[in-house]
Amino acid sequence: MNTIVMKFGGTSVAGTEKIRNIADIVIKEVKNNKIIVVLSAMAGETNKLQSFLDDFASQYSLESDLVLTSGEQVTIGLLSAQLKNKDIKSIPLLGWQIPIITDDNHEKAKILHIDNKRIEKFFEKNDVIVLAGFQGISLDGEITSLGRGGSDTTAVAIASSVGAERCDIYTDVDGVYTTDPNIDLNAKKIPKMSYEEMLEMASTGSKVLHTRSVELAMKNNLTLQVLSSLTKETGTFIVDEKELIEKEIVSGVSYSKNEAKVTISGILDKPGISAKIFSLMTENNINVDMIVQNISQDGISANITFTISQKDFDLTKSVIEQNRNSLNYKSLSLDKNVAKISVIGMGMMSQAGVAEKMFKTLAKNEINILAISTSEIKISVLIEEKHTNIAVKSLHEAYNL
Amino acid sequence: MNTIVMKFGGTSVAGTEKIRNIADIVIKEVKNNKIIVVLSAMAGETNKLQSFLDDFASQYSLESDLVLTSGEQVTIGLLSAQLKNKDIKSIPLLGWQIPIITDDNHEKAKILHIDNKRIEKFFEKNDVIVLAGFQGISLDGEITSLGRGGSDTTAVAIASSVGAERCDIYTDVDGVYTTDPNIDLNAKKIPKMSYEEMLEMASTGSKVLHTRSVELAMKNNLTLQVLSSLTKETGTFIVDEKELIEKEIVSGVSYSKNEAKVTISGILDKPGISAKIFSLMTENNINVDMIVQNISQDGISANITFTISQKDFDLTKSVIEQNRNSLNYKSLSLDKNVAKISVIGMGMMSQAGVAEKMFKTLAKNEINILAISTSEIKISVLIEEKHTNIAVKSLHEAYNL
Repeated sequence: MNTIVMKFGGTSVAGTEKIRNIADIVIKEVKNNKIIVVLSAMAGETNKLQSFLDDFASQYSLESDLVLTSGEQVTIGLLSAQLKNKDIKSIPLLGWQIPIITDDNHEKAKILHIDNKRIEKFFEKNDVIVLAGFQGISLDGEITSLGRGGSDTTAVAIASSVGAERCDIYTDVDGVYTTDPNIDLNAKKIPKMSYEEMLEMASTGSKVLHTRSVELAMKNNLTLQVLSSLTKETGTFIVDEKELIEKEIVSGVSYSKNEAKVTISGILDKPGISAKIFSLMTENNINVDMIVQNISQDGISANITFTISQKDFDLTKSVIEQNRNSLNYKSLSLDKNVAKISVIGMGMMSQAGVAEKMFKTLAKNEINILAISTSEIKISVLIEEKHTNIAVKSLHEAYNL
Repeated sequence: MNTIVMKFGGTSVAGTEKIRNIADIVIKEVKNNKIIVVLSAMAGETNKLQSFLDDFASQYSLESDLVLTSGEQVTIGLLSAQLKNKDIKSIPLLGWQIPIITDDNHEKAKILHIDNKRIEKFFEKNDVIVLAGFQGISLDGEITSLGRGGSDTTAVAIASSVGAERCDIYTDVDGVYTTDPNIDLNAKKIPKMSYEEMLEMASTGSKVLHTRSVELAMKNNLTLQVLSSLTKETGTFIVDEKELIEKEIVSGVSYSKNEAKVTISGILDKPGISAKIFSLMTENNINVDMIVQNISQDGISANITFTISQKDFDLTKSVIEQNRNSLNYKSLSLDKNVAKISVIGMGMMSQAGVAEKMFKTLAKNEINILAISTSEIKISVLIEEKHTNIAVKSLHEAYNL
């Protein structure tokens, strides 16, 4: 008998009606499979608990994890009760009861080990295990959390651990789209894509799955399906690239408005100055994405432009200003009104002209490119935020998506 | 260094302001003592969780316990964070982390064992242990609950286990009163009373403490203090009767409106008929309190009157009616409009005339007594509910309380 892992996020468990709906979805699969259901807390609950913690300005991550992991305890109990109401043999389990052993990095713990024998033992008397996502236990016996979105990681980790046939991630969208349907009505659901494409999608703004969960699925070659808990349609399968017989040159266009652009002007163009800037960023845990360096018009000083996450805006500004003397620059400007647009596709690796088409399409629409970064399966450009919609739509059309 | 256990109930932890207040109370004691704080869930939270369970008509007590015990997890995390904000070394612990081992009677589990060495270990690095009340873990590794009000029992059990100097139970009243201050403005706080008196108070309607917690304190000769988290006043101490140098003849007057009176008339007065009625009650888990049996006026049939809890009203009615043939009675009447009034005091044992004074006082106020029950330190009478206030006030005055 196969094992299937089914994960339901916060909006899918928000309220008793939705939990009834999940029970119905689980019951359809239970005849032919052993089922592990992984649940998040009810949507809104984690925010409520976080606001309590904020009231105390709590910087104590042991306490934060304890408070935040109480939400899943409620949803797993309720779903298990409803499954029993429907005569399904079910057991609700917390992270420490499996146990899901993690390191002791509270609020962003990594899973170290899952004891399979215990899972087998629970399946001796039960057809469904309802497992609390997001949480684990450290070797010291403290409750840990995997960080926001960590339930995806729980689901993939347990699926990998038991060798599940697949891991279905139920969300409020019915799959991964070629671009955001809110921007472009022509956006289409992608039936099948590679882990690499999904990772690029996630890192460029399509927050369908927790990045760590995709990396873990890729490492374990576990098939993921992203689908909706409200429709009965097949979702998007995320698989090894070898299983993609016909690779699309470009499979999707994504965008992110969470970027900020930093420009440091009039720095002396001598070796080591870039290294100095970026080691400052690293020291302060500021993630730098795109980097462009130009000689300025006077021919002796240089300008450096790079992008950061908007949340690091204030920190970046103060770090650079505090080091004004050693960096010896003329001016600093930061700008939040930028967007990153990315085209992603496994086919790019073997196809020339993908970047050219991107730049031409943007030029035709009179959109200026502020910075560029590329990977084997992705090209990202930074543009002014106001051009986001027209950029996404025109690129989506240009690549025939 | 002494250990003090401090327990705060639901109204004392309802909201971040109240949790700050608790931290301040704890900090005052922490210089001279090791502290174990036992917390309930925020008032209202348990009702919210229960309403989710009710939505599923859940009869699965493993699931119910899992859902209901999530509330304390939040409050202990928040209090511990606030204590750390105030530079107190604190650790929040769930029932299973101590562990508090219970039997597997979900929703009403009994504590079997508390591992003291673990508590000592936690005190090596911490000055305060913030412990989740109400919850434990069965030998099978399942989360159990001690039932409503169970946090009192957690506090007393852990205090007994570590040999605490005393166990302070913080509530929304500042002690135990000679009677309900809402009925009689002359009600006075009792400075010191015996476990037995407190037990009679609890079983006769003064729901200040969970009955099981008082029994456990008595068994372990642990001093309890009932006090308010809002005032700074000394509360009521509950101690061994030997410590009560001058015993009050009557220490308090309590009342309960949760009773119902059952009268079965015209039954044949032959041996075994009472036994039959009360074994029926036992079989159906109906607790019977006062019993009065009279020969009826015809001299051959009897009437039996007894009291039950109002929650068993419908069940009792149907059980007796279903057995009408074998019980062979003429008529059955049930009445909710009754109240039980009790006078309680250790001094009764050695003092004559206490009952006489009670009956005379009621007679003087033209209050009819429907049934009587007595113990060594308590006399209870059943009266019509409408006379409750005047009965309580006149008795309170008669015994000079």
